[in-house]
Amino acid sequence: MSLDLLPHCIAALDIGGTKIAASIADASGPLIRLVEPTRTSGTPETVARQGLALVDACCARLGRDPATVGALGVSSCGPFELRDGAAGIVPPNLCGGLPNGDDLPNDWTFLPLESVLRERFATVKIANDCVAALHGERAFGSAPPNSLYVTWSTGIGFGLCVDGRILHGKAGNAGHAGHMLMTESTDALCGCGNRGDLEAMIGGRNFGKHLGKPLPDIFGDARRGDPAALEVVQQAARWFGRGLYNLVAILDTEAIFIGGSVWQHNQDLLAPIVRHEIDSRFPALTRGVSVQGTTLGELVTDIGAFALVMPAGWMADWQVRRPWESTRSATAPNAEPSAS
Amino acid sequence: MSLDLLPHCIAALDIGGTKIAASIADASGPLIRLVEPTRTSGTPETVARQGLALVDACCARLGRDPATVGALGVSSCGPFELRDGAAGIVPPNLCGGLPNGDDLPNDWTFLPLESVLRERFATVKIANDCVAALHGERAFGSAPPNSLYVTWSTGIGFGLCVDGRILHGKAGNAGHAGHMLMTESTDALCGCGNRGDLEAMIGGRNFGKHLGKPLPDIFGDARRGDPAALEVVQQAARWFGRGLYNLVAILDTEAIFIGGSVWQHNQDLLAPIVRHEIDSRFPALTRGVSVQGTTLGELVTDIGAFALVMPAGWMADWQVRRPWESTRSATAPNAEPSAS
Repeated sequence: MSLDLLPHCIAALDIGGTKIAASIADASGPLIRLVEPTRTSGTPETVARQGLALVDACCARLGRDPATVGALGVSSCGPFELRDGAAGIVPPNLCGGLPNGDDLPNDWTFLPLESVLRERFATVKIANDCVAALHGERAFGSAPPNSLYVTWSTGIGFGLCVDGRILHGKAGNAGHAGHMLMTESTDALCGCGNRGDLEAMIGGRNFGKHLGKPLPDIFGDARRGDPAALEVVQQAARWFGRGLYNLVAILDTEAIFIGGSVWQHNQDLLAPIVRHEIDSRFPALTRGVSVQGTTLGELVTDIGAFALVMPAGWMADWQVRRPWESTRSATAPNAEPSAS
Repeated sequence: MSLDLLPHCIAALDIGGTKIAASIADASGPLIRLVEPTRTSGTPETVARQGLALVDACCARLGRDPATVGALGVSSCGPFELRDGAAGIVPPNLCGGLPNGDDLPNDWTFLPLESVLRERFATVKIANDCVAALHGERAFGSAPPNSLYVTWSTGIGFGLCVDGRILHGKAGNAGHAGHMLMTESTDALCGCGNRGDLEAMIGGRNFGKHLGKPLPDIFGDARRGDPAALEVVQQAARWFGRGLYNLVAILDTEAIFIGGSVWQHNQDLLAPIVRHEIDSRFPALTRGVSVQGTTLGELVTDIGAFALVMPAGWMADWQVRRPWESTRSATAPNAEPSAS
């Protein structure tokens, strides 16, 4: 009867600064994914409860009893903070009570996750979204023992794997390399309060802001040869490459996997410059380092969240069948389109 | 008779850009330490053979048969490179054949270590000097699972421990954070070829160079209130603090241990500024991070090299007795004084 102990299905939550997604999978593969804008008003428990409701909505769509969901894997924006031994998050993009949160309609300074989610699920595993993505790349992609995952979108975050182990740190915050200081210039302000860190300079919110255009337009102008747009794009690629080089020097990394909308839509312009920033430095540290897009596509963080709580037997089977490549997707009634 | 398999004694080599030290220990503790200037002429095997000769000189002083030395732990400057599966080093401070090595009397581009040392010792373990130091701090100091060791002297190097494991990387080069780019200014040139990395800006070779005085004089002038010297010292402390903050953000570090002559002799001036650079940033990442000098003193890399090859029984005993605190030291006939 031990087979009865296996969950009938598992759930994944992907909690981001702008969107929150819930997914359900069974042994056959992912079954459904619903996505909504992340709520920014209410009590600090609002976001975790929105996640639970979204899991329930997935179950309702599937006609499944929510009690058959045996475990929850969570990939979340960070950073994490432990309160009374339970993990929550302090994300500058959601917490209006932080020093730079004046534009947010709340006074939150801490969002509890683990304490709320454990009311419903006995098994809850929570990781930073980029750490979860790297779990996905390690489990189902081709990430070698010394590799890193980086997302370049509104924010810039990392998952770090060294000697075959994904780094966690004292509170689960290893990988916040987007908050690495890159310049003593004080122009660029990050949500964390830093000036001159990587995210402040080239995160999607700040990058090219002085041109007064949406980022896709800036990349479009750069492709058409507009000198101002081209200079902004090339400078951003140089900073990104310098940041990746720094991590290669610090961690002796072998392979870099990149996700996020900025990279995915523009790697034709960005990749050659990023490569040059790495390859032009001390060969003893940089020789042979590979740079490539995520092998799991836009679902990398969801797949990573599933990987956190997936039975070993499913994992071996999914590695062969790669069922997420044919996932049905759906959108909640109140949701924005899931494509970014 | 299995006790016969325990080594009668073990040796440690500390290979630096300016000095090389050999030590011998038995179960009772370290017995002798000899130090010489590192040779920079001859064949690329010169440095490894100098190390073997220094171990032999230690044995001769002790009246012990070199055959009773059962294992060799090596802490070495880096970076490492593997050739034919054996580790050697490519240190910019010793290799005249590298792009910036014009002032060195050799054309070396790679110094074999492991292949030479294994001619004499069946058990050889080699680690970067700061990685070895962190092994020492973990074994005999108070370094918690998420900690880092940094030396600030001629160069700047790091050992990194995350989740209780000391990081190695694809070729043993994790921790080369002295080669982390800190500014886009191109004034400061590092031996590795970088401009604007941490070592280029505040390593002992470059730091305050424009004042045209030895570094101890600059610190002396700063203590007497000389404005130019004080500005140089304070700016260096700010850069060092920014570098440490970067590693805290990247690795979610809890405790930082600092060695090296620049720090050891001047922490009264440096520490408050370094602390401020960490404490003034995002509390979710920096709260509670401790910064302190190495707890093992000037022998930290030697103790670390011993720790690499020490029988477990010795380690438990040394943790209690701390025998290195009463080590006899000696100087080889051809050596410079061992104090820096």
